[in-house]
Amino acid sequence: MQRSVFLWTRRRVLGVLLGLGLAAFVPLAAFAQSDPLASWNEGPAKSSIMDFVRRVTTQGGPDFVPVEERIATFDNDGTLWAEQPMYFQIAFAMDRVKAMAKDHPEWNDRQPYKAVLEDDRTALAALGEKGFLQIMAATHAGMTVAEFETIVSEWLKTARHPRFDRPYTDLVYQPMQELLAYLRANGFKTFIVSGGGIEFMRPWAPKAYGIPPEQIVGSSGKTQFRLEGDTPSILKLPEIEFVDDGPGKPVGINRFIGRRPVFAAGNSDGDLEMLQWTTLNTGPRFALIVHHTDAEREWAYDRDSPVGRLNKALDQAPARGWLVVDMKRDWKLVFPFQK
Amino acid sequence: MQRSVFLWTRRRVLGVLLGLGLAAFVPLAAFAQSDPLASWNEGPAKSSIMDFVRRVTTQGGPDFVPVEERIATFDNDGTLWAEQPMYFQIAFAMDRVKAMAKDHPEWNDRQPYKAVLEDDRTALAALGEKGFLQIMAATHAGMTVAEFETIVSEWLKTARHPRFDRPYTDLVYQPMQELLAYLRANGFKTFIVSGGGIEFMRPWAPKAYGIPPEQIVGSSGKTQFRLEGDTPSILKLPEIEFVDDGPGKPVGINRFIGRRPVFAAGNSDGDLEMLQWTTLNTGPRFALIVHHTDAEREWAYDRDSPVGRLNKALDQAPARGWLVVDMKRDWKLVFPFQK
Repeated sequence: MQRSVFLWTRRRVLGVLLGLGLAAFVPLAAFAQSDPLASWNEGPAKSSIMDFVRRVTTQGGPDFVPVEERIATFDNDGTLWAEQPMYFQIAFAMDRVKAMAKDHPEWNDRQPYKAVLEDDRTALAALGEKGFLQIMAATHAGMTVAEFETIVSEWLKTARHPRFDRPYTDLVYQPMQELLAYLRANGFKTFIVSGGGIEFMRPWAPKAYGIPPEQIVGSSGKTQFRLEGDTPSILKLPEIEFVDDGPGKPVGINRFIGRRPVFAAGNSDGDLEMLQWTTLNTGPRFALIVHHTDAEREWAYDRDSPVGRLNKALDQAPARGWLVVDMKRDWKLVFPFQK
Repeated sequence: MQRSVFLWTRRRVLGVLLGLGLAAFVPLAAFAQSDPLASWNEGPAKSSIMDFVRRVTTQGGPDFVPVEERIATFDNDGTLWAEQPMYFQIAFAMDRVKAMAKDHPEWNDRQPYKAVLEDDRTALAALGEKGFLQIMAATHAGMTVAEFETIVSEWLKTARHPRFDRPYTDLVYQPMQELLAYLRANGFKTFIVSGGGIEFMRPWAPKAYGIPPEQIVGSSGKTQFRLEGDTPSILKLPEIEFVDDGPGKPVGINRFIGRRPVFAAGNSDGDLEMLQWTTLNTGPRFALIVHHTDAEREWAYDRDSPVGRLNKALDQAPARGWLVVDMKRDWKLVFPFQK
């Protein structure tokens, strides 16, 4: 309804201008521009986002935010791309163990590698955090950052998501892509603030989301500068440096960005503190939670989910005025390939 | 000489255009624009910088660098502003000890505070790194990031540099300001990569250099997210997180920026690895060292200087093709107030 009125008005204005012979002097793109959030269904979710952006960009208005303060932070797993049946970075690590096993015959009889090689989820789960960290160290350290980047890029070319049988990078959310572009078109600087590894994201996220490497904040391992002859490199060490999750997200935002966001998006309790840090502030602030409600097109999960647990943030959302995006209701499509 | 030829040519072209009545269709700014590096004397230093920028911005040329890869990193102390007779952040810490002493009567008899309160440099030096770290912990931790920002800003309003009797922020180098602006005007994204504290720089560096907080990389202490009632804050803890100096600079560049710089500037051996990381790469790369050679307008120091030690980087400069800027010879003026 809103949309057809808009189309009619647009056509009428253009017609009048053509009649006056002024069209040549009008930037046609301004009229031809389609709905910036075309994959969002009309409704309160879409209109609250667009209303917020209008308010903070209205010069002279009470909620105007100067361009340099328009910082928007986005969680990645479950917010910008899918995270089921396991974080894609974990799928990468599992695949790496299998690929590296030919050079490590001893892994066939040694945990946690044995569990990975035999796809034994029960044994893997039983190995807990220690096993997980061993797998991460074996697959994410002992090479240079440049080498790791190549490994990630090569994996993404061949690996297929088990349910959709498509490259993992096909599983980005079309509506969130549009939201990122819409915010940027309105002067926002968009950042990823993810619990995922910073060096796992940088090889593909710039192309997938239009976010440059220097605007990607994530968890990291320690690294070391090395100069061999005249060849410098940065070596990835098997030691955790920073976990950008939960209370680590505001810490990471402060360290990397140095400003409090005006807009933040997440989908799990790992984003709780980022949403608090964003909205419990003076001035106009916006936070949204992607609520996974669509078992058919994507997945349906929230409370106590092993991946993407959403309890506290969902409980706090109404009182804090956070938008809970109902994927099934609010999104016209989920993935670009569902077009 | 070069410059007058340039002026003459510019005037002649403009005159011809005016004669042809074409001037109205020519963007006059292109002609009216003054020398972007006006505070640099004509000579090899200035022309090598301008030649490099011309080459990397010439579309279709062999050295063209796409805009998104035009990353320029600048050391701060001794490269963008002065660092004598001591790093300004140390002067800040000393002043803070004195200001806080009224609430800490026990400091009058306790080292390292006693040495600071009595301006006893010999005793201070004898206390070494341990004493230094105690002073940093006492003055840089135990408050929120926002509180610390206010403290730094207030200090800068009242503190005066001992030699020039001016605010410390007056001691930025005019030619380097112009270089930053010139690079940005040519599509470069400029970053600070400093051994100084990230939270010490962010309150003033954006205004002083036109570099936003999210493009300031520096040393940091650990921090913690805290939520009291509905008031979130980031607390500064008395523990070192990261030292962005020497081999830490490429590590910091990799962590925060995720790309290798195309252009880097420093002035001491603390910048050696950043210059190596920048230039020991394929494609066009530029590195410069600000050489402090002007005891009259600024200071003259390099080898084995207690502040701004420049041995290895100076030795390596010729073979590696790094530009050594001779402050006395190459800079028309040093500080803006010397205009």
